[in-house]
Amino acid sequence: MTSKIGIVGLGRMGANMARRLKDCSLTVSAVYDIHSATADALASELGALACRSLAEVTAASDVILTVVTDDQAMRAIFAATGDSLLTGAAGRTFINCATVSPAVHLEVEAATEKLGAHTLEGCMASSITQAREGSLYLMLGGKPQVFDSVRPILEKLSTNMRYVGGSGEAAKVKALVNMVMNSNTAALAEGLGLASAVGLDLTMIREVFSQTGAASRVLVTDGEDMQNRDHSCYFSASHAAKDSGIALDLARTAGLHLPVALATKAQYAKMVALGLGELDKSGIAELTFPGRGHASA
Amino acid sequence: MTSKIGIVGLGRMGANMARRLKDCSLTVSAVYDIHSATADALASELGALACRSLAEVTAASDVILTVVTDDQAMRAIFAATGDSLLTGAAGRTFINCATVSPAVHLEVEAATEKLGAHTLEGCMASSITQAREGSLYLMLGGKPQVFDSVRPILEKLSTNMRYVGGSGEAAKVKALVNMVMNSNTAALAEGLGLASAVGLDLTMIREVFSQTGAASRVLVTDGEDMQNRDHSCYFSASHAAKDSGIALDLARTAGLHLPVALATKAQYAKMVALGLGELDKSGIAELTFPGRGHASA
Repeated sequence: MTSKIGIVGLGRMGANMARRLKDCSLTVSAVYDIHSATADALASELGALACRSLAEVTAASDVILTVVTDDQAMRAIFAATGDSLLTGAAGRTFINCATVSPAVHLEVEAATEKLGAHTLEGCMASSITQAREGSLYLMLGGKPQVFDSVRPILEKLSTNMRYVGGSGEAAKVKALVNMVMNSNTAALAEGLGLASAVGLDLTMIREVFSQTGAASRVLVTDGEDMQNRDHSCYFSASHAAKDSGIALDLARTAGLHLPVALATKAQYAKMVALGLGELDKSGIAELTFPGRGHASA
Repeated sequence: MTSKIGIVGLGRMGANMARRLKDCSLTVSAVYDIHSATADALASELGALACRSLAEVTAASDVILTVVTDDQAMRAIFAATGDSLLTGAAGRTFINCATVSPAVHLEVEAATEKLGAHTLEGCMASSITQAREGSLYLMLGGKPQVFDSVRPILEKLSTNMRYVGGSGEAAKVKALVNMVMNSNTAALAEGLGLASAVGLDLTMIREVFSQTGAASRVLVTDGEDMQNRDHSCYFSASHAAKDSGIALDLARTAGLHLPVALATKAQYAKMVALGLGELDKSGIAELTFPGRGHASA
């Protein structure tokens, strides 16, 4: 039996995952976005149903991938009342790919199980290009049998999957990955900003960093962009602020003091406050380079 | 002509550089350390003169490598009065390998040139093993002709040399490398500490970090040590505090606000205050892991 797959949340990640599944000859049955024009366009591109309500997606699909922005959006699409993916959900499987708080995954799992439906977390530690190419790094959380049931679909999206445990566990891992990534990004922006301030050649500095203890993945992905002020968005500053915030909430609950993550979160929150939240995370360099308007002691 | 090489400052870096030069059949003529027993032992091992004064080192050597701890120690060995490497320095070349403030390199260069001697910065971005094996990553600062004159010696110490500019420039680069490295280390310690607090498997988390945007050189060098509390010292927390401090002094002068580096410096300063300054930089995990006695909000 071929699953009918619905997609909710058609940002660049969700839309590219839909395109990838279609490329792999899977059945993308239904798409939904709060911006109905976005849904119409993708539905037309993929030959899917452009849904005007969440309940329609559930009705038209066996497996529903959700790729929304945050806790609030996740709670909204799984609302107990009003238009909701929960309407007629019995037998459906929801794969929730947004980076949200671990507790939200547990709430959604409880709500769906009560209706005879299933959920799985599919936390993505990759970006738009990987979504399009089916090479996402995916961390899965939920019941093992749910994971097994949708594995053929996940394998089209990911070349690198890791089942990490029960619901909420993948979200914890993802929050930690992004917390560390964001701090490394903030640290890199400080290093390059200071290099610029003291008159060092930035291309040379990046090469030296790459050979030493200052090397990092974000040096490769973001270093040149920081130098060139190319902040086209792959992972936004506002998402960075949100994800460091999720991790810091976990830390607060655990009674841990994480000052570097706090300083990083404050920088990304400052970007949002300055109207720079939709820049890529590399845009944090706008706060640390002299002469870019936002760097001052 | 074979240069007679003197070594001042016989910590594990200086001692291993001396051993390496001897292995390469260069002439290690004289060694000096403020702990005279240390000098005696190494002198006996290498068949060099154990000097009781700095002036003796200068007298017995053509090229003097200095590997001292900080600005104060650098100023002391090049003092204008009292026992000093400057006594009888005409014609000598000093290669100064300590991580000190850029301004100190300029002071020392001025003082030596007045006497007809030469200086070169040889900033090392590697550790003890690389010193012993002659595979240091070396950044050189100073006059190009001075660099050329001691290049045959440097090539025995380093497989990866980079001439970065005039005196003080290599110290700037080194301060930036260590500032970013220290921040990445602090960020990693927070990520692993929080992973531990929320009950995630640390070996799994390190593997996930290595595959994602959280990857860094310090994850490779320090991640497992943080997990296992193996803080045998390669690069001490007190050095980390000092080096981030040098970089932050440059930032202050430039009018830049670098909150992540500040938070990192405060963590390493806290380690020093708690008596943990001689742990390896990985020991910062003692501040972020629950149950290790120093992690609290």
